[in-house]
Amino acid sequence: MIQSVAFIGLGAMGYRMAAHLPKNFDQVLVWNRNFSKAEQHATEYGTTAVSLSQAVQADIIFSCLPTSQDVETLIESVEIKSGAIWIDCTSGVPDAGRRLAESLKLKNIDFLDAPVSGQTIGAENATLTFMVGGNTEAFERAYSAMTALGKLIQHVGDSGAGFAVKAINNMLLAVNLWSVAEGFTTLKAHGVNLDAALNCINASSGKSLVTETIFPQRVLSREFPVTFALPLLAKDTGIALDLVHEAKLPAPILSLTQSLIQAANLMAEPNSDFSSAVKLYESWSKITLD
Amino acid sequence: MIQSVAFIGLGAMGYRMAAHLPKNFDQVLVWNRNFSKAEQHATEYGTTAVSLSQAVQADIIFSCLPTSQDVETLIESVEIKSGAIWIDCTSGVPDAGRRLAESLKLKNIDFLDAPVSGQTIGAENATLTFMVGGNTEAFERAYSAMTALGKLIQHVGDSGAGFAVKAINNMLLAVNLWSVAEGFTTLKAHGVNLDAALNCINASSGKSLVTETIFPQRVLSREFPVTFALPLLAKDTGIALDLVHEAKLPAPILSLTQSLIQAANLMAEPNSDFSSAVKLYESWSKITLD
Amino acid sequence: MIQSVAFIGLGAMGYRMAAHLPKNFDQVLVWNRNFSKAEQHATEYGTTAVSLSQAVQADIIFSCLPTSQDVETLIESVEIKSGAIWIDCTSGVPDAGRRLAESLKLKNIDFLDAPVSGQTIGAENATLTFMVGGNTEAFERAYSAMTALGKLIQHVGDSGAGFAVKAINNMLLAVNLWSVAEGFTTLKAHGVNLDAALNCINASSGKSLVTETIFPQRVLSREFPVTFALPLLAKDTGIALDLVHEAKLPAPILSLTQSLIQAANLMAEPNSDFSSAVKLYESWSKITLD
Amino acid sequence: MIQSVAFIGLGAMGYRMAAHLPKNFDQVLVWNRNFSKAEQHATEYGTTAVSLSQAVQADIIFSCLPTSQDVETLIESVEIKSGAIWIDCTSGVPDAGRRLAESLKLKNIDFLDAPVSGQTIGAENATLTFMVGGNTEAFERAYSAMTALGKLIQHVGDSGAGFAVKAINNMLLAVNLWSVAEGFTTLKAHGVNLDAALNCINASSGKSLVTETIFPQRVLSREFPVTFALPLLAKDTGIALDLVHEAKLPAPILSLTQSLIQAANLMAEPNSDFSSAVKLYESWSKITLD
Repeated sequence: MIQSVAFIGLGAMGYRMAAHLPKNFDQVLVWNRNFSKAEQHATEYGTTAVSLSQAVQADIIFSCLPTSQDVETLIESVEIKSGAIWIDCTSGVPDAGRRLAESLKLKNIDFLDAPVSGQTIGAENATLTFMVGGNTEAFERAYSAMTALGKLIQHVGDSGAGFAVKAINNMLLAVNLWSVAEGFTTLKAHGVNLDAALNCINASSGKSLVTETIFPQRVLSREFPVTFALPLLAKDTGIALDLVHEAKLPAPILSLTQSLIQAANLMAEPNSDFSSAVKLYESWSKITLD
Repeated sequence: MIQSVAFIGLGAMGYRMAAHLPKNFDQVLVWNRNFSKAEQHATEYGTTAVSLSQAVQADIIFSCLPTSQDVETLIESVEIKSGAIWIDCTSGVPDAGRRLAESLKLKNIDFLDAPVSGQTIGAENATLTFMVGGNTEAFERAYSAMTALGKLIQHVGDSGAGFAVKAINNMLLAVNLWSVAEGFTTLKAHGVNLDAALNCINASSGKSLVTETIFPQRVLSREFPVTFALPLLAKDTGIALDLVHEAKLPAPILSLTQSLIQAANLMAEPNSDFSSAVKLYESWSKITLD
Repeated sequence: MIQSVAFIGLGAMGYRMAAHLPKNFDQVLVWNRNFSKAEQHATEYGTTAVSLSQAVQADIIFSCLPTSQDVETLIESVEIKSGAIWIDCTSGVPDAGRRLAESLKLKNIDFLDAPVSGQTIGAENATLTFMVGGNTEAFERAYSAMTALGKLIQHVGDSGAGFAVKAINNMLLAVNLWSVAEGFTTLKAHGVNLDAALNCINASSGKSLVTETIFPQRVLSREFPVTFALPLLAKDTGIALDLVHEAKLPAPILSLTQSLIQAANLMAEPNSDFSSAVKLYESWSKITLD
Repeated sequence: MIQSVAFIGLGAMGYRMAAHLPKNFDQVLVWNRNFSKAEQHATEYGTTAVSLSQAVQADIIFSCLPTSQDVETLIESVEIKSGAIWIDCTSGVPDAGRRLAESLKLKNIDFLDAPVSGQTIGAENATLTFMVGGNTEAFERAYSAMTALGKLIQHVGDSGAGFAVKAINNMLLAVNLWSVAEGFTTLKAHGVNLDAALNCINASSGKSLVTETIFPQRVLSREFPVTFALPLLAKDTGIALDLVHEAKLPAPILSLTQSLIQAANLMAEPNSDFSSAVKLYESWSKITLD
């Protein structure tokens, strides 16, 4: 029986995710490096702001931090309750997931790499997708805790597999974003109406989430709202490419995309949305996608 | 008032498309190079099999042939009725569309480049998407004839624009197909369950029509049903790249994809579905996507 | 017997090339659109400045213009002497070479596509390389006229073949330039001494004309002297890629390079040397190659 | 004063390199895993075949093994003489070079990463190029030992820099090899004489060691002599790409090349020369480079 649940890392995603836990669990502990955010969360949602060492005494511990490095550093600094399950929602590195799962196993703690997709709106509506790697039995025990925050809770393989799927998902997002930019710039150069073209493609075989929502809402609208930062996409495409290299695979399109996203990230203004990557391409083509 | 409609080219698409016309028009003429197919269509659907020179006396003339070259050769050989509208559903070349529109205009005939998407199932159910380039007034006059065969009838720009959108749509299909192959091969190399990964991505930002239907139904199933031939995809990506070059644009991802599809096409067995392009990548990675 | 030789187009290359002709031929006619340059050449080198219609009465007519289009326009406007040989040193388009050879043949005139390499210094020292396409017999008759200007006079195939070799040569130059920029930026990021690295590579299997001269003299020196303009390189890589597409070949590296050079050209300041293409890459990497 | 020199690893390169040492040093020790090779070397060249633990008592210890992993394993298993200099001629990994230099420094041993180029013929003639990373003072002390085996002995930076230069050199070799294959296939498709084209390019700006020797001697000759194995080139391009990623640089051409070489390696027959990588491209183009 899950008696207590903790959530560590109350960023844009974590803050909204942890808000659903009090509906499902009696004791919900929250912790954040900037602690005033934890106190604000407690006030707003009826959770309990506690110290990090208290938080890791929960039966289920969620974490959602910028990088795997942050998670590893944090876990090294604490004594986690024996028998706990740690569910790491960070978009992390598969190798780090495997290392953590192995080292925590020795202390009778299960570690699941469980990155999420769905963005802040999905966190708010508890409709996130969890892509989960790790021990099947731990997955089953942790299942109900994840269903409190998401709609699709999918076990995808052993430790690291969840991080791997997230990285490949984001790489495909990057491929789609960039290739749609090239394609629509070409159409614009030939005088085609881009909104009409988008209608057609969204009813055809070339459609993707990029053509359905990202491109009209972020690029053609020129809004580029900062909901998923470009440096994080660059990090994730980097993780995907590391997976390619570890497997000694050729991957021409993914490799090229990573170079382009890397360049776009180096060229971008600070605090840019991932969709701003198209601005690098616009600077080459001298054509604005509007 | 449209009195008569003709359909020229009763291939896999045209045969099914022309079948809907008798429900909407009194006189429906059909012609096909292999004329027995036209006679069979007349028997099956109540159309009238006629000579080519008779067919081009209709008010509205649809054509659906393998290439723009075929359409140009055929049009040069006939005397089309003055005042007619020619709706070319071939996945054709924008330049050819412009040339035909200009030369036919001199004879008081409108030419619309109106390629379709939706495959044979869309042709059968009259749910095709028409992406139409050409004169707006002609588009409006021809609109009802197209609604008999499709669901979304979209004017996208001047002559050639319809062909351009189709070419870019198919190029994006190619990019998605190849990049998903690279990504899923990487996941398989790392022991991830591919069906579970597909579930996650289809609920996430990396999804596309390729992840939603092409990959599970054609690739992972190992069925590769031949509904859209690989040489035609190679032709279409070639058209897309010609658009890039005419506009003197850089397009690294589209260019690379065209090279890969070209190579896949040269390597493929005759009569391969477009989805078989992944087999070239499988031959490199030594990993089968199943 | 060659009685008279003409040179049409006294640009940076042509002016220097034509200067050698009086040493070998009695009558040397020169023409240039800006005619004062022709008069200056006559004064300086003892040639004879004549009208265009007089120039094309020579036995051998050299031309060296910016593009094949310029050559075609000029040839259409004149009546060339029957029996003459036209040696076009422009870095031109193979198709144009074939067209001109065919149409001039009907008037008993031979056309050789004979682009040169060696830059202005090679023109000055008469050490150019001529890569010649066209009729073997015409090549032999014209041989002595070319030896007056160059060191290696090489017949490479039928009409268009000379232009094709030049385009591929310049494409390889572009590939080498860009890849050396990527490689040396990587070395600099890791603290390697670039001059020392260049020494090693120039004694090893990775060496090229780019590592031997272009990179040290133009890039690392930050001089980027304008001897071969970037838009001309972009034109030539475009010609090379057209050859790829006409042959329906996959060519991933050449295609990608052309996209990069195209982007570099669109981003460059006016009047940039081809070696400035690396500045686009520097803008991505935030590392200056010095 | 150098009293004794050892050579560890008598492969195709090491066997020939060690042969020069007796001319310059009184005591030359050799060791090889397959010890009979060491004994054969002693007989043939007057060196002394000793145990590994004896070999590492020399003042200067050369090693030349397949990978950095081999060198690390070997060094961990022995007690090296304090004050010795270890000169590792393996084409190794920069990170491994740094690690070894740091750990050996603690034992008062200097480690230089000193990969060589020049192939077996350079080893035989003592005309190799040494690209050396590490401590300057150790470089100077070891200089005379390296001049016994090579012509250009170049210090390129701190530990790891030698390995980095070698990796980038070999990556440039790979880029040149593949791009020349694409370019010459295009020329052949257009009927150009390849030997004549090679002559022209070797006198022009597109030339490289690949056009000067590799292509005519290995590819066009169809000999593909196995002097540098394709898996080793794939390893080296992988090392180069790791350098790119560690520096978080975009590198589109190098990334794509590595994918292509990786694919070529996976597709190649066992025991293929690196130049056989072009056979993958030939399989796509259906054109043989002869």
